Amino acid sequence: MNGAEALIETAIRAGIDICFANPGTTELPLMAAMDAVSGMHAVLCLFEGVCTGAADGYGRMSGRPALTLLHHGPGLANGIANLHNARRARTQLVNIIGEHMTWHRDANPPLATDIASLARPVSAWVHTASNSQSLAAEFADALSAACSCNGQVACLIVPMDCQQGAAASPAALKPAQPPPQPSAERLAGARRVLRAGQPSAILLGGPHALSKRGLAAASRIAAASGCRLFCETFPARMERGAGFPVVEKLPYFPEQALESLSPFAHLILAGAGVPVAFFGYAGHPSRLIPQGTHQTVLADPEEDAVTALEELADDLDAPDRGPVASESRPARPNGELTPRSLGEAIAAVQPEGLIVVDEALTSGLPYFLASASAPPFTYLTLTGGSIGHGLPCAVGAALACPDRRVLAFEADGSGMYTVQALWTMARENLNITTVICSNRGYRILRLEMARAGITHPGPQSQGVTELSRPALDWVALARGMGVPGVRVETADAMVDQLGRVLNEAGPCLIEAII
Amino acid sequence: MNGAEALIETAIRAGIDICFANPGTTELPLMAAMDAVSGMHAVLCLFEGVCTGAADGYGRMSGRPALTLLHHGPGLANGIANLHNARRARTQLVNIIGEHMTWHRDANPPLATDIASLARPVSAWVHTASNSQSLAAEFADALSAACSCNGQVACLIVPMDCQQGAAASPAALKPAQPPPQPSAERLAGARRVLRAGQPSAILLGGPHALSKRGLAAASRIAAASGCRLFCETFPARMERGAGFPVVEKLPYFPEQALESLSPFAHLILAGAGVPVAFFGYAGHPSRLIPQGTHQTVLADPEEDAVTALEELADDLDAPDRGPVASESRPARPNGELTPRSLGEAIAAVQPEGLIVVDEALTSGLPYFLASASAPPFTYLTLTGGSIGHGLPCAVGAALACPDRRVLAFEADGSGMYTVQALWTMARENLNITTVICSNRGYRILRLEMARAGITHPGPQSQGVTELSRPALDWVALARGMGVPGVRVETADAMVDQLGRVLNEAGPCLIEAII
Repeated sequence: MNGAEALIETAIRAGIDICFANPGTTELPLMAAMDAVSGMHAVLCLFEGVCTGAADGYGRMSGRPALTLLHHGPGLANGIANLHNARRARTQLVNIIGEHMTWHRDANPPLATDIASLARPVSAWVHTASNSQSLAAEFADALSAACSCNGQVACLIVPMDCQQGAAASPAALKPAQPPPQPSAERLAGARRVLRAGQPSAILLGGPHALSKRGLAAASRIAAASGCRLFCETFPARMERGAGFPVVEKLPYFPEQALESLSPFAHLILAGAGVPVAFFGYAGHPSRLIPQGTHQTVLADPEEDAVTALEELADDLDAPDRGPVASESRPARPNGELTPRSLGEAIAAVQPEGLIVVDEALTSGLPYFLASASAPPFTYLTLTGGSIGHGLPCAVGAALACPDRRVLAFEADGSGMYTVQALWTMARENLNITTVICSNRGYRILRLEMARAGITHPGPQSQGVTELSRPALDWVALARGMGVPGVRVETADAMVDQLGRVLNEAGPCLIEAII
Repeated sequence: MNGAEALIETAIRAGIDICFANPGTTELPLMAAMDAVSGMHAVLCLFEGVCTGAADGYGRMSGRPALTLLHHGPGLANGIANLHNARRARTQLVNIIGEHMTWHRDANPPLATDIASLARPVSAWVHTASNSQSLAAEFADALSAACSCNGQVACLIVPMDCQQGAAASPAALKPAQPPPQPSAERLAGARRVLRAGQPSAILLGGPHALSKRGLAAASRIAAASGCRLFCETFPARMERGAGFPVVEKLPYFPEQALESLSPFAHLILAGAGVPVAFFGYAGHPSRLIPQGTHQTVLADPEEDAVTALEELADDLDAPDRGPVASESRPARPNGELTPRSLGEAIAAVQPEGLIVVDEALTSGLPYFLASASAPPFTYLTLTGGSIGHGLPCAVGAALACPDRRVLAFEADGSGMYTVQALWTMARENLNITTVICSNRGYRILRLEMARAGITHPGPQSQGVTELSRPALDWVALARGMGVPGVRVETADAMVDQLGRVLNEAGPCLIEAII
């Protein structure tokens, strides 16, 4: 057995059976090991940003560590943007990054790079393998790091000779560091606040507080205390719809977020950090706690927020069940296709158990509002602001949950960043419906321009927000990668087409002209 | 005047009039400055890897510093792979990377990253701007660094408030550090070697030795000494064809490179480093100097190799002109379309003054051989091995040389990495003909697999080299981005279509099924 085989066998024993891969020469022994050791499926992505975004989606939906295989510094570099999102989502994720033979590095061949310097900003754990005998154990360390502290990104850099050299056996799996339990002081503090009877809100965040268990506990707390429930602006994963409590999303712009929270004397943080403005705006604060609102931490993002919520509910003698939404869909929209009618169209037809990956940005908010009482579904968003996340994330979510349908709700500008994901949807025949909100512009940037006082942008400023010269033809792009597509221009057509394709197997794309 | 306007005005005074941009909120004051100060054209690219690859192509062809505008750490990260290539090409390149307001960074907003850690592996100079008054001077420092040492990559990180705050004036330009002149000892050493009359070769490399002047001097040296001329396997920029001396390319695989150099008692390095194997292979050395071949350095890559060659030619009392190729094209091929007939087809019809960007990888070598005596042209290659360079590089080359035609000779696997470049070709209406060598696989990886002893790859290894399930439809992809395209399957059709589109204005794509 060689080092590569010991590593892959270790991964399989840890329950990992998918690797999002774009290998090169220095990763070939690892690829050969995936054939020598059975049980690992390499999912080819035609760009590494697709590998890492898919791994993020896979990790969020499977709850198990996701695995990528990347080629050298440039291969990692192409994947960094989506690793940034995964880091912010606290996704359990291990990247294996191939590297030159140890004896070849000093020669400074063309691909040589400082891989660790590239990895560090997006990783909690970075290590270069030392030899073939220890490789599997070093991989077990990477896995342990990825599963620690509520989920982290780990990067293991593996020189080619460490893959090829002999190894005795796979490595024993190592325990992860579990998230710290809520402290008695914090529980008591939150209980005190909620019992005092002043207007209070809980901000739910992190990878677990918006789960079925976390939401059930939050709903009980709301029933016992009358507090309101909010979630972070960009939740990593959230269960939604009928059967779940109604949770408001903290608005994106700081003045709106502050206004949302201003009625409350207390804000309790449960798995969420202090809310922070996405960008700094002159005259607006960075930290979005209104003056007069007191913040109380129940659980930090790296702590066990679910247990904290459950213990708090018990401490409050909350009822066994709190209020939840009953199923109610918006009426089938008709007429013009706008962000609002598009959102209503999706909510009107979405099946139970859908996984919605929302990278629709400016076009996405009306859907969030329209889908509050849709049949129960899972909602994933762009946690780190690094666009090009949605299509790859949908790939990973579909592979993690082959029995569920996935909707990639995508902006045109963001979608172009990792458009190669469509090909992997076709190759793996994934049940993903991609809806492109084709507004032919970087609309968020136009809004931000107005906020920055650029009310009459000149041709240079205007030009960089326009995707209209030429207009992208998403149906042609999809066809180019083996995905059937259709263009819709009215709300009626949207409802009809979406209803149709959600019942068909395999990937499909709908270009919604809004 | 604000900091952003002072910076843009400084850039314009330095002769920079194009900025490859994909800005976000934190770069909006710089965009507004491009409207406030006239003379800068922002070229929108729909992915940052296109911005940096285009900047590389622009820098190589214009000989002036290229400029990009990128959004935060993730925007830079998406551009790193092509910055890696630019670094290896010694392209003069300045990246401006927007960053949060200085007072907002501590709040750790979603996009916050350690930008400098990402920049360092691909940059000779990295700096974070300190305030609006000094911003323009800090940009002048970046420019000076980019123009020093034969060309470098510089990264200036600019918090948004440093763009918005007041500035007194644009900054004075600062001198760059010129490349060191050749030492008398090195000149004497090379002269001694060449006068000794033993079989010798010169390896030409770096950004200047393969220029018109460098090649003229090399040809004179060959005439005086009988030495043979080689170039690096992946030259940054090379003048070729009729009127230039015939220069052999050092082969890619180490045993072939060693065999090429084995007839020579001496190898003189002129702007090239010691040749190094692209990957380490067990049983093969890293450094490709045959036993029995003595290496002599005339000029290091950061030195002035052109002056060194000219002085060496004079020292050798070389004739004013050395031997050069006479124009001779291959016969118009017919029959099956193969890498060979494809290469011949291009060489048979290419117009004088063409700029060829070669990222065809395994399909490209026959073209290099077929085009040795084509009408004079410029040849650019993938210097750093980070694929996804060719289409963006063609964008930059076309903008640097609007009076010349550009041929992007591209592999299908590599082309997909930065396929978004096609859109910028359409938006800017660039005279670029893209030829996709559609072999529907990562063929180089199959060759490398056989070398690694994987002679019967299993389904996982085989699968990651196959782009055939589904086959990419490049004509549809091009249409999706506003570029007309055509598919050809025979050598005759290739000649016909290429001859036609090379006479039409604007971009076009030919998918060559090989």
